[in-house]
Amino acid sequence: MQMLSHLNCYNIILGSQSPRREGLLRGLNIPFEIKVIDVEETYPSQLVGVDIPMYLAEKKANAYLELMDDNTLLITADTIVWHEGKVFGKPKDKADATRMLKSLSGKTHQVITGVCISSLSRRKTFHVISEVRFARLLPVEIEYYLNNFEPYDKAGAYGVQEWIGYIGVEHIEGSYFNVMGLPIQRLYSELKRWKNN
Amino acid sequence: MQMLSHLNCYNIILGSQSPRREGLLRGLNIPFEIKVIDVEETYPSQLVGVDIPMYLAEKKANAYLELMDDNTLLITADTIVWHEGKVFGKPKDKADATRMLKSLSGKTHQVITGVCISSLSRRKTFHVISEVRFARLLPVEIEYYLNNFEPYDKAGAYGVQEWIGYIGVEHIEGSYFNVMGLPIQRLYSELKRWKNN
Repeated sequence: MQMLSHLNCYNIILGSQSPRREGLLRGLNIPFEIKVIDVEETYPSQLVGVDIPMYLAEKKANAYLELMDDNTLLITADTIVWHEGKVFGKPKDKADATRMLKSLSGKTHQVITGVCISSLSRRKTFHVISEVRFARLLPVEIEYYLNNFEPYDKAGAYGVQEWIGYIGVEHIEGSYFNVMGLPIQRLYSELKRWKNN
Repeated sequence: MQMLSHLNCYNIILGSQSPRREGLLRGLNIPFEIKVIDVEETYPSQLVGVDIPMYLAEKKANAYLELMDDNTLLITADTIVWHEGKVFGKPKDKADATRMLKSLSGKTHQVITGVCISSLSRRKTFHVISEVRFARLLPVEIEYYLNNFEPYDKAGAYGVQEWIGYIGVEHIEGSYFNVMGLPIQRLYSELKRWKNN
């Protein structure tokens, strides 16, 4: 694509196993491949808010260093739900998911994605915040969602593009795609201005 | 579905040929069928803003009256882009689409959907407004979009779920699904409280 033709010299790698991130990046109509390296999503306990997904996006990038050559452009990302001073990551089990959704019900939380674009010679890390307001969720709605969907790979125990997002998300401020897991407009804008030196 | 079981007595009809609206309503996991009646999208010239899609949603509903019986629950909707005091409807041709996208570029506009839920004995019409801010679009980006996509059935000449939405929409305030054409969370909430008397 003309607007990103300065990236034609790169093999672009998306370092994520999230099918939402893959779909969003496909939407840019640029070639890339996916390579998954499992990275433990742990971080120093003193980190709060935006610093957590920024740290994790860079930690994920570090894990790919051995795979990279001069033509590699790597994209890694991490998304958290930040609510009342706490991180909501991926739920451990149904009880944990229920607890998260009850806590998000009727309130506004932040979804924060950290993104790291890196080559062997340069690295750009940024974050995007979206505010999401949930309607009051009935216990029967939470139960229905958890019985019919599998939010165990999703921060905050919900997929905004699933039934719970349709019936529960009253209001978004910021990027919807960021809530899905990748702030694609900002990523495009960073890729447009990417220079490898 | 338990939360909408009071609607089991109805045949729900979606009166729209928009595949986005169909997909969004499918997401509620309730049975419905689609019936399309073409209605000319004209309205009294003194109407402005939210009154236009509310009027058109009701005008569309009126066209179905002969098809309805006591068990019919009809959903009709109309979406407009409202920008600088003017309506942006579906573009007539590529030049019209280019003009609209140039006008939306780098600015915030409103997407307004009017929705009408009706049975033979009751009618509820409401509207939902979302604010959408576009990044500055390059002429080459507008050209690329119009050469590769077909926005001629879309108000304002763009699909937020398409490439142009990925690379161009910087910020949304309100409902993302409303920008796609149906404010599904509000519709669900209205259906939950629907009483046919």
